[in-house]
Amino acid sequence: MIQDDNISILSQVLTFWDKLESKDKNLIVDHTINTTYQQGNFYSGENDCIGILIIKSGSFRIYLLSEDGREITLFRLEKGDICVLSATCIFENITFDVNLSAEVESEVLLINPKVFSKIASKNIYAENFLYKEAAKRFSDVMWTMDQILFMKFDKRLALFLLNEISRNNSNIVYLTHDQIAKHLSSAREVVSRMLSYFAKEGLIKLSRGEITIVNETGLEKFS
Amino acid sequence: MIQDDNISILSQVLTFWDKLESKDKNLIVDHTINTTYQQGNFYSGENDCIGILIIKSGSFRIYLLSEDGREITLFRLEKGDICVLSATCIFENITFDVNLSAEVESEVLLINPKVFSKIASKNIYAENFLYKEAAKRFSDVMWTMDQILFMKFDKRLALFLLNEISRNNSNIVYLTHDQIAKHLSSAREVVSRMLSYFAKEGLIKLSRGEITIVNETGLEKFS
Repeated sequence: MIQDDNISILSQVLTFWDKLESKDKNLIVDHTINTTYQQGNFYSGENDCIGILIIKSGSFRIYLLSEDGREITLFRLEKGDICVLSATCIFENITFDVNLSAEVESEVLLINPKVFSKIASKNIYAENFLYKEAAKRFSDVMWTMDQILFMKFDKRLALFLLNEISRNNSNIVYLTHDQIAKHLSSAREVVSRMLSYFAKEGLIKLSRGEITIVNETGLEKFS
Repeated sequence: MIQDDNISILSQVLTFWDKLESKDKNLIVDHTINTTYQQGNFYSGENDCIGILIIKSGSFRIYLLSEDGREITLFRLEKGDICVLSATCIFENITFDVNLSAEVESEVLLINPKVFSKIASKNIYAENFLYKEAAKRFSDVMWTMDQILFMKFDKRLALFLLNEISRNNSNIVYLTHDQIAKHLSSAREVVSRMLSYFAKEGLIKLSRGEITIVNETGLEKFS
C-alpha cells in the first residue's frame, strides 16, 4: 500500500482521476507500488509487461535491441514522465516491444498492468490516457528515426553533446565513447574519430571518461 | 454532400458512430467529401492538414522526406484503411509530419479536420478513435524502423519482393530498381546488385521495368 504523497502523485499524473469511481481509485492505489531500480537493464519487452511507470527520480533509456546485440536509443524518460510502453500487453494496437534501462538509481511508482487494463476496458478516459501517452512517444520515436536516418553524424554528435550539457547543467559530459556510440546507434570508432575532430577544432577537451565542452557556440554551428 | 453508400461506410469505419449525437453525425456527413487522387505525391505534412482519409480503393504510401530529397517509406494504406496522420493538426501529442503519395489512382472519403477536431474535443470516443488509429501506425513505424536499422539487405529485399507478389496476387513485380530503392531507403546500385545476385541464384528473372519471381521458396529462405 502506498502512502498519501504517492496517492497525490497518482491523482495528478493520471489525468482521468476525476472520472474514476472511488472503488477504481482504490483499486489503482492498492495495486501500485513504490520501487527503486538500480542502474542497468531491467526490462525486456519480449518477455515482460511490468506495468505503467511514473518516474519519481532518476532517468530511463528506452531502446530497441537487435538479434546481434546492437542497441538503438529511442528516447529517455525523466522525473514526472510516464512510461506506458512497459505495459504494451494492455494495448490492442501496439505490437512492438522495447527495452528499458535505468541510467542511474531511479525511484518509480509502478501500476499493475492487469488492474489498469481492467479499468481502461470500462472507462474510456483511462483508455484514452494510455493512447495519448503512447502518441507522445510516437513523436519521440519519429524524431529519433529522422535523426538516425537523415542526419549527418557530426550534426548528431554535436546535438547530443549540447543536449547533455543542457540536461545536466554542466559543461562536462561523463560518458565513455562507447556509451555515446550506444546512444547514437553508432560504433565507438566513429564516435572517437568525430570527438578527436571536435577536439582538434578546439570545441571540446577530452580526458578519460569525460568530455568538456569549451566552445558551445562553435558546437552549435554543427548542430 | 455524400450519398447513402458513403454514409454507410462512415458509420462502419468510425467505430464511435453510435456514441455521436445526430447533429454531430450530420456535421461529419456534411463535411466529408468523396474524392479521387491521381497517382503521385499529393500531401506534404509540413504544410497540409487535409483531414482524415478513409481509403475506398487504390493504395497510398506514407513516407518521410529528408532535406536532401531521400525518402523512407513508413507504411502503406489500402482499401478499408484509415489515415489519421494526414490530419496531425488535430492531435496535441503528435509533432511530426509525414508525406503521402497515391501509388495508383485512389478513391477516398476525406473528413474535414476542423470539424473532426471540434467533435473530438467534446466527445471522448471520437478522440480515443484518433489516438487508437495513431497507435496502429506507431506499430507499423516501429516495424519499419527495426527492418531498416537491423536487418541485412538481402533479407529486406527478399521480404519486399515476397510482400509485393502476395499484395498484387501476381508473381511479377512492376517496379524499377530505383523505385525499389526508394521503398527500402537504399540506393539504386545496392538494389541492382542484390537483384542480380538473386537472378544468378535462379530466384528471379529480370527484364526492363519488371521482376518475375520464379522460385518463391528459395526467396523465402532469405526472408
